[in-house]
Amino acid sequence: MSSEEQSPVVSEEGSEKKLSKKEAAKLERQRKRQEAAAASAISAVAIEADDPLAENYGDVALKDLQSKEISGKKWTELKNLTDLLKDQVVLIRGRAQTIRAVGKKMAFIVVRERGFTVQCVLNVSPGAVSPQMVKYATGLSRESIVDVEGVVSVPAQSITGATQQVEIQVKKLYCVNKAVPTLPVNIEDAARSEVDIEKALQAGEQLVRVNQDTRLNFRVLDMRTPANQGIFRVQCQVENIFRQFLLSEGFVGIHTPKLIAGSSEGGSAVFRLDYKGTPACLAQSPQLHKQMSICGDFGRVFEIGPVFRAEDSFTHRHLCEFTGLDVEMEIKEHYSEVMDIVDRLFVAMFDCLNENCSKELEAINRQYPFEKLKYLRNTLRLTFEEGVQMLKEAGVEIDPLGDLNTESERKLGQLVLEKYGTEFYILHRYPLAVRPFYTMPCYDNPSYSNSFDVFIRGEEIISGAQRVHVPEYLSERAQACGIDVKTISTYIDSFRYGAPPHGGFGVGLERVVMLFCALNNIRKTSLFPRDPQRITP
Amino acid sequence: MSSEEQSPVVSEEGSEKKLSKKEAAKLERQRKRQEAAAASAISAVAIEADDPLAENYGDVALKDLQSKEISGKKWTELKNLTDLLKDQVVLIRGRAQTIRAVGKKMAFIVVRERGFTVQCVLNVSPGAVSPQMVKYATGLSRESIVDVEGVVSVPAQSITGATQQVEIQVKKLYCVNKAVPTLPVNIEDAARSEVDIEKALQAGEQLVRVNQDTRLNFRVLDMRTPANQGIFRVQCQVENIFRQFLLSEGFVGIHTPKLIAGSSEGGSAVFRLDYKGTPACLAQSPQLHKQMSICGDFGRVFEIGPVFRAEDSFTHRHLCEFTGLDVEMEIKEHYSEVMDIVDRLFVAMFDCLNENCSKELEAINRQYPFEKLKYLRNTLRLTFEEGVQMLKEAGVEIDPLGDLNTESERKLGQLVLEKYGTEFYILHRYPLAVRPFYTMPCYDNPSYSNSFDVFIRGEEIISGAQRVHVPEYLSERAQACGIDVKTISTYIDSFRYGAPPHGGFGVGLERVVMLFCALNNIRKTSLFPRDPQRITP
Repeated sequence: MSSEEQSPVVSEEGSEKKLSKKEAAKLERQRKRQEAAAASAISAVAIEADDPLAENYGDVALKDLQSKEISGKKWTELKNLTDLLKDQVVLIRGRAQTIRAVGKKMAFIVVRERGFTVQCVLNVSPGAVSPQMVKYATGLSRESIVDVEGVVSVPAQSITGATQQVEIQVKKLYCVNKAVPTLPVNIEDAARSEVDIEKALQAGEQLVRVNQDTRLNFRVLDMRTPANQGIFRVQCQVENIFRQFLLSEGFVGIHTPKLIAGSSEGGSAVFRLDYKGTPACLAQSPQLHKQMSICGDFGRVFEIGPVFRAEDSFTHRHLCEFTGLDVEMEIKEHYSEVMDIVDRLFVAMFDCLNENCSKELEAINRQYPFEKLKYLRNTLRLTFEEGVQMLKEAGVEIDPLGDLNTESERKLGQLVLEKYGTEFYILHRYPLAVRPFYTMPCYDNPSYSNSFDVFIRGEEIISGAQRVHVPEYLSERAQACGIDVKTISTYIDSFRYGAPPHGGFGVGLERVVMLFCALNNIRKTSLFPRDPQRITP
Repeated sequence: MSSEEQSPVVSEEGSEKKLSKKEAAKLERQRKRQEAAAASAISAVAIEADDPLAENYGDVALKDLQSKEISGKKWTELKNLTDLLKDQVVLIRGRAQTIRAVGKKMAFIVVRERGFTVQCVLNVSPGAVSPQMVKYATGLSRESIVDVEGVVSVPAQSITGATQQVEIQVKKLYCVNKAVPTLPVNIEDAARSEVDIEKALQAGEQLVRVNQDTRLNFRVLDMRTPANQGIFRVQCQVENIFRQFLLSEGFVGIHTPKLIAGSSEGGSAVFRLDYKGTPACLAQSPQLHKQMSICGDFGRVFEIGPVFRAEDSFTHRHLCEFTGLDVEMEIKEHYSEVMDIVDRLFVAMFDCLNENCSKELEAINRQYPFEKLKYLRNTLRLTFEEGVQMLKEAGVEIDPLGDLNTESERKLGQLVLEKYGTEFYILHRYPLAVRPFYTMPCYDNPSYSNSFDVFIRGEEIISGAQRVHVPEYLSERAQACGIDVKTISTYIDSFRYGAPPHGGFGVGLERVVMLFCALNNIRKTSLFPRDPQRITP
């Protein structure tokens, strides 16, 4: 496809061998066409030799895609193709999703752009569409990028094979970039739901099921499915709502370093590296630096950025790198001030997603059916002790000063749903022993702490707490948790210059999207997931 | 400061030794006060023994800061303290910025919260403020966190030592958290401008100048200056305007991995690490993955996140970790489509900053005086050749197919300002040899490329280009640039499944803020900067 590869037809034909009159005339026609094509922004090459309409189709030369000209041409976005454009000539660019020949005189190409599709019709007619053009069209490889010019028509019957309810009667068709003829993953296979696979199986037909690893190996193909287009647009909105809500509440967005000396905050396995001769690691969260920013008088801060965990967790909900949504804020009296932010933020987020992302959620739902999340106007808050009691009454005994495991979290989620009708709730006053060293113990019982977790559909998405803001006590707690205080001395020293009481929380962006949409694996909500066994693509 | 340390007075006084009547009465008074204090959310301890008004001041016990109660008390934010609140009782929390005694009967405390300050007055009066309370106040260490309750008054003369034009006549004063008595950096020293230091020097007075390293070593103190409060709030806005503009133009915000196998995109020194037995490195930019997302049909994407450079650049404008603002988008014909986005985005950003961040910009200007950025409604675009010619005419000869060095960039900036009246412009059609392998060469001259840099005040802030979207040609270019194609095979393969022509750009967030405010060092715009010699705090 380099510019050097485009002229073999010319050089062969133009060579010294003797030409018949017919051949000479043919060559002359070809030359003229090529000159004309070269003068146009979209020029057709490798054209069918015998077709006087050959300028209307063909492969675009690389040279013509190297910012040769600003032609003033207008491309129409596929999502704007409606019957308002009936009878108008439009130019679109997209992928040839499916190509179907009907005899030698007709072909259909479904063109796709960012999740929208339109049916394009080639119909042989004198002076407009040649049989060679139909042949060219049906020879295109799927997923190639094409420019289509044609007239918008509105068929009498509604269209089922495309999102747009108009067709394009093709006049010109150029291939901008070719896909390889055989794709490692077909988009329609990747877009198929389990339900459809099962239905077909019952009807005796075995359809391709693309497994998770294959999807991730060929992520650029997998990303093109309607569900994935929806998932990552929803994810972008989750982040945006998070930001806009916090900005409106006086929070400042900050960026703290991911490269840190020593051993991060302890408690998790970290990725280690050499930093110009100093042992360093990748931050397992912005915890220490976001608290230091509170000591630096920003009052209320948030950060959105990658966090790194070197843990060997082979589960459906752990990644080695994910996007953390972190919040830290001064509190006046009580960690409930932090829970109030969580409550209002997430209710606003869920409302907003349901309202503004309905098309994306539908697309996800078609491939991965899910029930809309049930949540209350005022988020339910239960104490850990109340949770333990509910489990006990349901016959599940757990250590009242231990942590919940995945199974008991799920069970409690079910019980809460049955009793309170919500799949989103806060569990607070966790046992101190299961929380990080910087967690403030309860005033009335040092076995418990001023901390909370938040659950969606029985799975944890948020951890939060009031922090210890007194340096001597913080050192004491760190030591009690087996942390070498020397490695976090700059952090502890930050509290010596006057530190306000404060608290905060951290959320996993991928988990929010996964659980809001009831997806079964966090790899579905990470664009290029990293787990203990995967660091590509 | 732990809860165990609060009762020695009681236990000593309550011991078995014989008490005089006077002593017993004193003890009884103290007990009552302590009981009363314990019943209130903010309780005073370590109180002056002989003061019947001792409940009105003192140190707050840690126990009372451990989320003991939700009292319903309302704190007023300092920024809301105006004459509208005259004669009303308010409760504020902030830092004791300065404390000044006037004899033994009066004291002034300037309290600061997030850059706002208010003068609080203690005036001994019977039944309200005791001499002991004034003594307590003047004994507070600067930067301690205090709760002040008092009546808002409007002094006849305007106040110069605080941002708020009202005073608080203090009735109650509690220390929530004590700063160490001697701070390693005084905020007023850190907040002083060079101009003030020079002026004082001329008047024979030597004021403290806090150098850059000391600032960074004690960043949590340095952050508290009005200039720094302004800088990081402006930075938050730059990011926010960037996001909102792009979202409104149909871009999708994405997150790509920072942990990547192999050697990133080449061309820069990278931080290497071991990833579960696989050699890996930290992404030097999201270049490869943002392009792969374009191949994945997102059409237009942006990413805000950390980028890592292990280069030993000891300059005023390089960091080892900074925040990249990255954009990638399909283009129809010409890389000018990318420059159009840059143009409109940044003009909108500058307008918005000037309009909405005037207070922050003033605060920065007071410590670091700067002229407002000059920019045009439609951003000037010059070709590299035109730039070379302008330099030549000014007597500066540079290699027409080489890169600009810092000095020639500065000079060209000056020339452009003189000729066109702008400090913000685009230079495009750079020599191919000085651009990364994935840059698309010009259609008409392969010595040049479809690329551009953008400058503010003579320094580069943005690099952008059309990319090579044809896999065979991309391999060829990578090899020509000495890159081992095997290490980037998943990237190159991404273009085999149909790739639209596309381009994009990357911006350094810290540089934008630095140059918009004409600051002299990028460490001023990074909260916790990382350079070859610094990985703390």
